[in-house]
Amino acid sequence: MVKTHSELDRALSGDTRALARLLSLVEDGSPRAREVIKDLLPRTGHARIIGLTGAPGVGKSTMTAALVGAFRAAGRRIAVLAVDPTSPFTGGALLGDRIRMQEHATDEAVFIRSMASRGHLGGLAAATPQAIRVLDAAGFELIIIETVGVGQAEVAIASLADTVAVLLAPGMGDAIQAAKAGILEVADLFIVNKADKPDAQQVVRDLRNMLALGANYKGWKPPIITTTATTGEGLAEVVTQLDAHRDWLTASGELTRRRHARAREEITALAYAALRDRVRASGVDELAARVADGTLDPFQAAEDILARGTD
Amino acid sequence: MVKTHSELDRALSGDTRALARLLSLVEDGSPRAREVIKDLLPRTGHARIIGLTGAPGVGKSTMTAALVGAFRAAGRRIAVLAVDPTSPFTGGALLGDRIRMQEHATDEAVFIRSMASRGHLGGLAAATPQAIRVLDAAGFELIIIETVGVGQAEVAIASLADTVAVLLAPGMGDAIQAAKAGILEVADLFIVNKADKPDAQQVVRDLRNMLALGANYKGWKPPIITTTATTGEGLAEVVTQLDAHRDWLTASGELTRRRHARAREEITALAYAALRDRVRASGVDELAARVADGTLDPFQAAEDILARGTD
Repeated sequence: MVKTHSELDRALSGDTRALARLLSLVEDGSPRAREVIKDLLPRTGHARIIGLTGAPGVGKSTMTAALVGAFRAAGRRIAVLAVDPTSPFTGGALLGDRIRMQEHATDEAVFIRSMASRGHLGGLAAATPQAIRVLDAAGFELIIIETVGVGQAEVAIASLADTVAVLLAPGMGDAIQAAKAGILEVADLFIVNKADKPDAQQVVRDLRNMLALGANYKGWKPPIITTTATTGEGLAEVVTQLDAHRDWLTASGELTRRRHARAREEITALAYAALRDRVRASGVDELAARVADGTLDPFQAAEDILARGTD
Repeated sequence: MVKTHSELDRALSGDTRALARLLSLVEDGSPRAREVIKDLLPRTGHARIIGLTGAPGVGKSTMTAALVGAFRAAGRRIAVLAVDPTSPFTGGALLGDRIRMQEHATDEAVFIRSMASRGHLGGLAAATPQAIRVLDAAGFELIIIETVGVGQAEVAIASLADTVAVLLAPGMGDAIQAAKAGILEVADLFIVNKADKPDAQQVVRDLRNMLALGANYKGWKPPIITTTATTGEGLAEVVTQLDAHRDWLTASGELTRRRHARAREEITALAYAALRDRVRASGVDELAARVADGTLDPFQAAEDILARGTD
C-alpha cells in the first residue's frame, strides 16, 4: 500500500504518466481501485464538469480543442475525457481527436484521456465517474467529457456533467435527431457549429421551435449559440454562457441537486453490479434446482441471494 | 386466508372465473400473490409448456386454435397464455385471437388468457412464470404460450417453454428476420405455414441453409414442418414432432436442465426486482448526499443498500 500511496501522490501532483496509470487502475473497478477512490474522495468536489455531445461530423473535437485553448488562456487546468460508448476499442475517431489535440499535448496543465467500452456493456457508466474523481482530485479545474454520437448511452454519460452542451451542425446530427434521442431534455446549452454553412440558421430555427414545444425551464433557458469552431467565431460567447450556467447552478442550488442525483444513480448502478457478482459467485444452481422441483418458492430464493454476501 | 384458500380450491378444481381471478392476483406480484404461489408450488411441475412465436401475419392464432383442437381430440386439458410484450394493453390482436378461439370458448377443458405488459417494463417476464404455475397446478396438461412478434422480448418469453415452436410464412416474418432476432437459436421446431402459397418452399430452403450455417445440435435437430393451418394440412405432423421433442427432452435429461435454467433466470430477475424495491424504499437520498459530499465512497453506499431489508 505504501507503493500505491506514493504512486497516488505522484499522480495527483502532476505526473502525467502516474495519472494515466491511476486512471487505468480505477477504471477496472477492482477492490484495489475501490481503496484508491476511498483515499482520494476527500480531495474531490472542486472540478467543473462539462459534457459535450453531438453526432459524428458536427465538429466536436475541433470545438473541444478550441474550448481547451480558451480555458487555458484564462489560466485554468483542464482535462478531457473522450468517451466512446459505441466502440469496444479506442478506435480511429478518438485517435484522430488526440492527434488534433496535439497542440495541447506538451502542456502540463492539459490532460487528455480516451475511454472506450472495452466490450463491457455498462462498463463506461461505472468507470467514468471514477475517472472524473481522479481528475478532480488531481486538481483539474475543468473536466470536459466528450462523447461520440447521440443516443441513450450518450445521454447517460452526458448526465454525469454539471453542464451539458449539445453540438449540432447543418446537415448532420440535426435538431430532429437530437430530439428523438432525448438529448434536448438534458441540454443546458446548444451550440450550432459550422455557422458559415447556408443551412445553419435553419437548424437554429428548428431548434427554437422544438424547444418552444417541449420545454419546461426551471430558471435556466438553454441558449442557442452559433459558432465556427475552425475560426474561433462565437467561442467567446460559448465560454460566457458556460460560466453563466455555472453561476446559475451554484446560486439556484441546482448544482447540489444534480450532484446528489448523480450520486444516487451511481450507487444504484453499483448495487446492481454487486448483485450481479453475487448471483455469479453464489450457489444459484442449487436454489434453482429446488425452485424447479417445487420445494422452494422463487421469491424466497431471490431473497436468499440478496441476503448473501459475495464471499 | 380461509377465503383465499377456498378461492384457491375453486380455481384449481375447474371454476373458470375463480381461475381468472387467481391469475389476476398472482400476476401483480404482491405479498399475497407470493403466499398463493408458495401454497400451490407442490402441485406444479406436471404441465408440458409449449411456446409458439412468430411475426404478425404468419397465422399464429389459427395455428394455436388448430393445436388446441388436435390436443382436445386426444382428450387433454389445455390452456393458452397469449402474451403481447409490445402492447401495454390487451389490444386488438389478442382480442381477435380470443374471438377466433371461440369454438373452444365453451369447452371447460380449454382455458384462454391474454396477458399484456400493462406498462410494466419487464413485468411480463416476472408475471408469466407465475401464471404458468397457476395453470400447471390447476391440472392443465398442456400450456401454450403464444407470443406476438419476433424480438428480444419474444425470445425471452419463448424461453419459458419446454419446447419452442417458431412459425414462419412466405412474405412475412421470413427466415432472415427470425435469424436477426436470435430466434433460430431457441427454436426446437420450425413450422412454415401457408404452405399453399408459391414462396413457401423458398422459406424452407432459406431456413435449411441458415440452420446448416449456424447450428450446433445437442442431440435434437429442429425439424421443419410445412402446414396450412386454415385447412389442417400438416397439423398431425406438428403434433407428432411436439411429442417426439417431449420424449427427447425427458430421455436426454434436457427437460431438467431447461427447467433449472429457467428457475435460475426467474430467481435472478426477482432478486433484481427486489433490489429495485429496496432502492426505492430506502434512504438512498441520504447516502447519495454523503457520496456527493465526499464523506462516503459509492462502493460502500452500494453495499449498504444490498445489506438492507425492504422494511
